[in-house]
Amino acid sequence: MSDDDRHAAKMAKKKAARDKIMATKTDEKGLVIVHTGKGKGKSSAAFGMIFRCIAHDMRSAVVQFIKGGMSTGERDLILGRFSDICAFHTMGEGFTWETQDRSRDTEMAAAAWEKAKELIRDQENRMVLLDEINIALRYEYIDVADVIAFLAEEKPPMTHVVLTGRNAHPDVIEAADLVTEMELVKHPFRSGIKAQIGVEY
Amino acid sequence: MSDDDRHAAKMAKKKAARDKIMATKTDEKGLVIVHTGKGKGKSSAAFGMIFRCIAHDMRSAVVQFIKGGMSTGERDLILGRFSDICAFHTMGEGFTWETQDRSRDTEMAAAAWEKAKELIRDQENRMVLLDEINIALRYEYIDVADVIAFLAEEKPPMTHVVLTGRNAHPDVIEAADLVTEMELVKHPFRSGIKAQIGVEY
Repeated sequence: MSDDDRHAAKMAKKKAARDKIMATKTDEKGLVIVHTGKGKGKSSAAFGMIFRCIAHDMRSAVVQFIKGGMSTGERDLILGRFSDICAFHTMGEGFTWETQDRSRDTEMAAAAWEKAKELIRDQENRMVLLDEINIALRYEYIDVADVIAFLAEEKPPMTHVVLTGRNAHPDVIEAADLVTEMELVKHPFRSGIKAQIGVEY
Repeated sequence: MSDDDRHAAKMAKKKAARDKIMATKTDEKGLVIVHTGKGKGKSSAAFGMIFRCIAHDMRSAVVQFIKGGMSTGERDLILGRFSDICAFHTMGEGFTWETQDRSRDTEMAAAAWEKAKELIRDQENRMVLLDEINIALRYEYIDVADVIAFLAEEKPPMTHVVLTGRNAHPDVIEAADLVTEMELVKHPFRSGIKAQIGVEY
């Protein structure tokens, strides 16, 4: 048996196994999706999904709980080119260690959560991204039990909701259908490289 | 001291520590960025960076080493709306277990790598995304030593190159500046949910 034949046989076996698994996956439902961890890409991967929705002409919405948490580039692209199909709301004002005002942060987070509920209830939206909500939950600016109860009881069955941010609450992970942890393996900040256009923002 | 004051004091301390660290980060350079791991979001987060470049009017390029590896939505969005600022090349034809032809896959991967080198050498491109190249490297369709030598010797100093795909080769991780591992915590395929528009493609 040649190398090529061996490879073909191995791949045919893989394909058969994969086809068999995929045949059992027949249901569709709106997912609760969480991107957490200390690594990069939590918000970017979520924006990738928003751009997929845009590409498929599916209406979606973004609520930015913490202003500094997200790329201004992605925001400007949505606001500038796709505001007809993707609503975009920025409710926070920079990271909490920039504002140092718990009362104001709590008010902002509460307003963001009200907006989020309104957007999720609107069945026109097929996906709603709650960017950096995990930070607001971690600082208890909004109540984790409220969020989980709302997702369980009021989210329309086919709507996808994506929650991003470090330190996702264990109850949020428990309630989610799809959880990815972005793990930091190596970062150039450690060797004196600053945040750069196109990469970080 | 009230709760609010304690919070403000804690945040002020965090801000001071963060500002001190950020002040030491002054260099800019083109990064070698790797997204790997079994979790979702490797390609989406890379596309998020491409969209940031687009938003900032920075020219970029994508070479898709494995056709099935990426969202057709993101591809169509780039081809349809942003082809003036982002070159897009699809060189593979579905995952290797779909094709089962090692010779053809090797030819395709070699052609994709030639195209990648051409795009990286062109200094007009500020970022080049090599989508799913890690799969081609893993199956030894292209030589990892060639790729690393090229990135070290011929990549223009300010160009960012992003390599995605599972099972990144240890030498690739060693050569990279920024590595993120997307770890699968929970996946709805396990409970019979199929790949869905907007989420997976």
